[in-house]
Amino acid sequence: MRPSGRQPNQMRAVTLERGIAPKAEGSCLVCFGSTRVLVTATVEQGVPSWRRGQGLGWVTAEYGMLPRATDTRTRREAAQGKQSGRTQEIQRLIGRSMRAVVDMAALGENQIILDCDVLEADGGTRTASITGAYVALADAITWLKARGLTKGEPLRDSVAAVSCGIFRGTPVLDLDYPEDSEADTDANFVMTGSGRFVEIQGTAEQTPFSRAELETLMALAEAGIGELTALQKAALNPA
Amino acid sequence: MRPSGRQPNQMRAVTLERGIAPKAEGSCLVCFGSTRVLVTATVEQGVPSWRRGQGLGWVTAEYGMLPRATDTRTRREAAQGKQSGRTQEIQRLIGRSMRAVVDMAALGENQIILDCDVLEADGGTRTASITGAYVALADAITWLKARGLTKGEPLRDSVAAVSCGIFRGTPVLDLDYPEDSEADTDANFVMTGSGRFVEIQGTAEQTPFSRAELETLMALAEAGIGELTALQKAALNPA
Amino acid sequence: MRPSGRQPNQMRAVTLERGIAPKAEGSCLVCFGSTRVLVTATVEQGVPSWRRGQGLGWVTAEYGMLPRATDTRTRREAAQGKQSGRTQEIQRLIGRSMRAVVDMAALGENQIILDCDVLEADGGTRTASITGAYVALADAITWLKARGLTKGEPLRDSVAAVSCGIFRGTPVLDLDYPEDSEADTDANFVMTGSGRFVEIQGTAEQTPFSRAELETLMALAEAGIGELTALQKAALNPA
Amino acid sequence: MRPSGRQPNQMRAVTLERGIAPKAEGSCLVCFGSTRVLVTATVEQGVPSWRRGQGLGWVTAEYGMLPRATDTRTRREAAQGKQSGRTQEIQRLIGRSMRAVVDMAALGENQIILDCDVLEADGGTRTASITGAYVALADAITWLKARGLTKGEPLRDSVAAVSCGIFRGTPVLDLDYPEDSEADTDANFVMTGSGRFVEIQGTAEQTPFSRAELETLMALAEAGIGELTALQKAALNPA
Amino acid sequence: MRPSGRQPNQMRAVTLERGIAPKAEGSCLVCFGSTRVLVTATVEQGVPSWRRGQGLGWVTAEYGMLPRATDTRTRREAAQGKQSGRTQEIQRLIGRSMRAVVDMAALGENQIILDCDVLEADGGTRTASITGAYVALADAITWLKARGLTKGEPLRDSVAAVSCGIFRGTPVLDLDYPEDSEADTDANFVMTGSGRFVEIQGTAEQTPFSRAELETLMALAEAGIGELTALQKAALNPA
Amino acid sequence: MRPSGRQPNQMRAVTLERGIAPKAEGSCLVCFGSTRVLVTATVEQGVPSWRRGQGLGWVTAEYGMLPRATDTRTRREAAQGKQSGRTQEIQRLIGRSMRAVVDMAALGENQIILDCDVLEADGGTRTASITGAYVALADAITWLKARGLTKGEPLRDSVAAVSCGIFRGTPVLDLDYPEDSEADTDANFVMTGSGRFVEIQGTAEQTPFSRAELETLMALAEAGIGELTALQKAALNPA
Repeated sequence: MRPSGRQPNQMRAVTLERGIAPKAEGSCLVCFGSTRVLVTATVEQGVPSWRRGQGLGWVTAEYGMLPRATDTRTRREAAQGKQSGRTQEIQRLIGRSMRAVVDMAALGENQIILDCDVLEADGGTRTASITGAYVALADAITWLKARGLTKGEPLRDSVAAVSCGIFRGTPVLDLDYPEDSEADTDANFVMTGSGRFVEIQGTAEQTPFSRAELETLMALAEAGIGELTALQKAALNPA
Repeated sequence: MRPSGRQPNQMRAVTLERGIAPKAEGSCLVCFGSTRVLVTATVEQGVPSWRRGQGLGWVTAEYGMLPRATDTRTRREAAQGKQSGRTQEIQRLIGRSMRAVVDMAALGENQIILDCDVLEADGGTRTASITGAYVALADAITWLKARGLTKGEPLRDSVAAVSCGIFRGTPVLDLDYPEDSEADTDANFVMTGSGRFVEIQGTAEQTPFSRAELETLMALAEAGIGELTALQKAALNPA
Repeated sequence: MRPSGRQPNQMRAVTLERGIAPKAEGSCLVCFGSTRVLVTATVEQGVPSWRRGQGLGWVTAEYGMLPRATDTRTRREAAQGKQSGRTQEIQRLIGRSMRAVVDMAALGENQIILDCDVLEADGGTRTASITGAYVALADAITWLKARGLTKGEPLRDSVAAVSCGIFRGTPVLDLDYPEDSEADTDANFVMTGSGRFVEIQGTAEQTPFSRAELETLMALAEAGIGELTALQKAALNPA
Repeated sequence: MRPSGRQPNQMRAVTLERGIAPKAEGSCLVCFGSTRVLVTATVEQGVPSWRRGQGLGWVTAEYGMLPRATDTRTRREAAQGKQSGRTQEIQRLIGRSMRAVVDMAALGENQIILDCDVLEADGGTRTASITGAYVALADAITWLKARGLTKGEPLRDSVAAVSCGIFRGTPVLDLDYPEDSEADTDANFVMTGSGRFVEIQGTAEQTPFSRAELETLMALAEAGIGELTALQKAALNPA
Repeated sequence: MRPSGRQPNQMRAVTLERGIAPKAEGSCLVCFGSTRVLVTATVEQGVPSWRRGQGLGWVTAEYGMLPRATDTRTRREAAQGKQSGRTQEIQRLIGRSMRAVVDMAALGENQIILDCDVLEADGGTRTASITGAYVALADAITWLKARGLTKGEPLRDSVAAVSCGIFRGTPVLDLDYPEDSEADTDANFVMTGSGRFVEIQGTAEQTPFSRAELETLMALAEAGIGELTALQKAALNPA
Repeated sequence: MRPSGRQPNQMRAVTLERGIAPKAEGSCLVCFGSTRVLVTATVEQGVPSWRRGQGLGWVTAEYGMLPRATDTRTRREAAQGKQSGRTQEIQRLIGRSMRAVVDMAALGENQIILDCDVLEADGGTRTASITGAYVALADAITWLKARGLTKGEPLRDSVAAVSCGIFRGTPVLDLDYPEDSEADTDANFVMTGSGRFVEIQGTAEQTPFSRAELETLMALAEAGIGELTALQKAALNPA
């Protein structure tokens, strides 16, 4: 039924490759099927001026897409002179998701910037970005801890994200682009490794959805996040 | 328990004043307590170029805030030369919410622009905007129908929005600014008059929330949307 | 003869409603007929960096128009990414007009920002803005004085503004939009309560005007300003 | 009494050199003392899109200042990415002044752009620009007429501009920079060769001015404009 | 003598991996040592409006750098709202270099856009970009030819680029970042496979260079380009 | 053979007029035939923030073109809101060329800004700008030395620039606009008075050039720079 032949509750193949950007304090190439995002984590000592003097850290994110990540070329935002509303929405979501699992007092007055650049886009770039950004964030925090620059453990939990939607009447997990562009309802779930919600964003493109449908999507998402959490753990603690 | 003395499931006083902007094809001054938003609906014959020739209409929204809608002055976006990410996120949400209840084929190649300008901000400006925008939209569609410019009834349902959150451990309905700035979890629900979901956006500011908590918020929202739907009907069909 | 049926020397109904924006240190909803402008005065302690260390205050203004203040929708300047030349010209005029009646040494190193946002535009938005801004300014100064933040009385005089023009050959006072868009000559006068000129801007749209015509317009303006000054006094000193 | 030793009613030496920019259809280097402005008039066949199909021409102006026209370097507007409010105000004034003496039907669907670039600034750059722009405009119109591209005579009158002000209590003509930066009142007059007003802009920097003072300034301006008109005639019709 | 231990005339290891971006009509991941650039070639039917109707094609390029391609994070140009002068200079150079080997009449009214995005920067990003862009361009042209969209062979020659410089007094080939940041003279050579020059850009950072030194650099470059040309051929015609 | 009738190795008439901008610390009107550029040198005490505290000076340049310097009007960059890639490329080149002959330690923490504004463009505006900028720079340094603000002699050499190209198969010196727009190869040479190279930029517009052709162009350039150096000396040391 799904164009890819997947089962409704089946995710795409997900891989998390650490250390892909050797200059960064943390990095991860995350793939959800053919969606590929290169995430780097940059550690900067000090925080933005509005945050100074409180002893608290800051975590933020930026998102971009290479022009030919998409089937037809997308205009380069740097050449257009501004970031689109969609880009800003996504990078704000990534930033909030990361901050939800960081103890800012333990981080101390350090800033971590997650840069998520989409090399290839086939649906789910924001959920892949969040899932990969956690891995890069964890490595950046390890880097800080190794240098004695934190006050205790800044990471309170892990965080990952997945999308679900109603495609041709059936609730399915981890929409790819052909599904996403046709789905009636599209929802993104950001959850912690311990199974709590950080963000939930559900949108009806055409037909509003019922509470029962939302419940079904949530159950799919919980299972998917469980898988992603296991993959994150495996990537960060290789055998 | 709530700073305003309201019950957990009690909304602020909500008023919807139609016709406040006499030059517009539809308009509404919507108040959720002291949050006040002036919404106008502009009808333009024709649609943007990317939409032309399909026989379909378009509905979009823009959002702004007067500099002194807030306790301390907010810089004017026109003077800064760009709209913030928050502004773009909100206006995209309003536009999607309106489109979810409009039959674009029945609207025909006409465009309706909803302008939501916040005169005073005390929390919930996006939910008030959506609730008021529906009223202005309905009047603009009546204007079009009276001139024979539609093909049948473009309005498929009504739409309204409300926020809920967990404030000092208690789930509450319709957060005002003092609650919003302190709440652990903040969720916005956009629902149709028939009780289906158009958008759900839940965010954990600090502490991720459980599925049970989300269920409680949904129940609060459903009740709140019911009240708003009744107020919208009363405003559009005065005795 | 005038589209509105007014006498040549007759102003529109003018109202000045103080305190309309409860969060601001001063505010005024000013109406010249159906032209309606919401003015807020914001007090900020400290002055811009180029002004610091001289013991002098600063007063400035910003102007905007809601998109549907006009008969057809005007594009939002924040969405266009810049303020038009007309907007900048008007806000510079409002700022200069206010500064002409303020003793900057008495104001001390405080800044007052007047935000003039046009809710409905029917001609004369700049003169209405100036007339209302004075009322908001006066309240903001009262607010400062009540807190002992000034050095003596910063207000040296009152200030108001009115337009005059030659409409179908006849000099008339306080042009509304139908007159303004057709008038040969359009002049704006900014005057103090004591009858002196702060600004005079006369423009011939088509036919240059003679000195005699200008004299006639001045006489009309002096009478109009007298009425506005009385209304300002009444608004600030209610019985 | 004046820093330059001039009489109150004495203008600076004014020169108008035509043809200074050989590529342009009209050009003029205008000097008011050491204020020097290079004006070019560009003829473009066709008018902006909003003006098309009415059989009417259009005249507009742009203004700029070389960075080192001033005593200390002024930042280049192209490098800053926008034109200042002052620049826009001035170029709008120049454009309106030129349009006031052009018969747009006779001009036909042609556009003339006046570019006024200040090489050296010593006060009065806008009045010098207007005075020189008229000469460049007249040459551009001659160019059009020689090619049979007009319908009759587009020039209805000449136009020139001069400033006056109250300097240390005395009304004086044609303020230079030392006077301008100190004057209480500064007024710019744009008048036709036949002695009618196109624009009058009077501003009180500190002390509002009386009607009597304004009358005195007008008389000074009328005399000054008379001199400038004679110089324009001589430049355009050399012996 | 060189920080990397290379001989003066020794290039870094260069690899050219085709087809890295499956959605693009041509693509190449080019590595000069640890400098890595992802190049995609996009084919668009039609040319920019200024080029239309001449039967000629167009080739252009854009360049960007991921924020953490560098040792410390570089601000994202899309977030800053403009491309730097350096970026524009480089992308103009890449575009000119490609156009020098394309027969625009044979290409027909098609446009090819080369996007060069630096994943990791260790000196020589512009020369690597040009060298890789040729490979992506060749594949895009093959794609066009396979669809019968060209008029004969658009590729007239191959093109590659390399830098040379005088490092601590010795002329060396293919500067890496430690060398580049210290070199007295830095020159970029763009040459065809047949050994002719397309671009030569030599710059003395501190000490101007003699003609003899330039000759030495040219000889180094000719040898380096020979190696790159062989690698390009091997990549495009794998055994 | 050349449209101007010049010999292949013949430069246009070159003039260098010092002191043309009386407010600037140095200035020069440079003409290469009918190409005319007004250069001013501004001295500012202090250096940009990234340069502070090292005891070193800084020299930079900006470039602009009056709208009607060209045969058809070029849009004003200030009105467009950004500098073109071409403008940035040229001003970066001028800045680098000047810095190559300045001893920054001797200059001390002073900044010199060269503004090059093209009054009329007939090819070679960048080479004329560099040649004239050196004269303005030298006068600005004399100004600094006269005030005891340098540490020894900051000028290490003179610098000038000229273009060469292959026009209809013949190598020629100092291309004018008709030649430049048709030439196959265009090269700009920046050289010191002592005959060393500061910059060399050669570009093949259509046909790549051979090393032999480049050698011929270099020889032409060396002769041309010799003439320009003599003119600079004569301008700075008038008999």
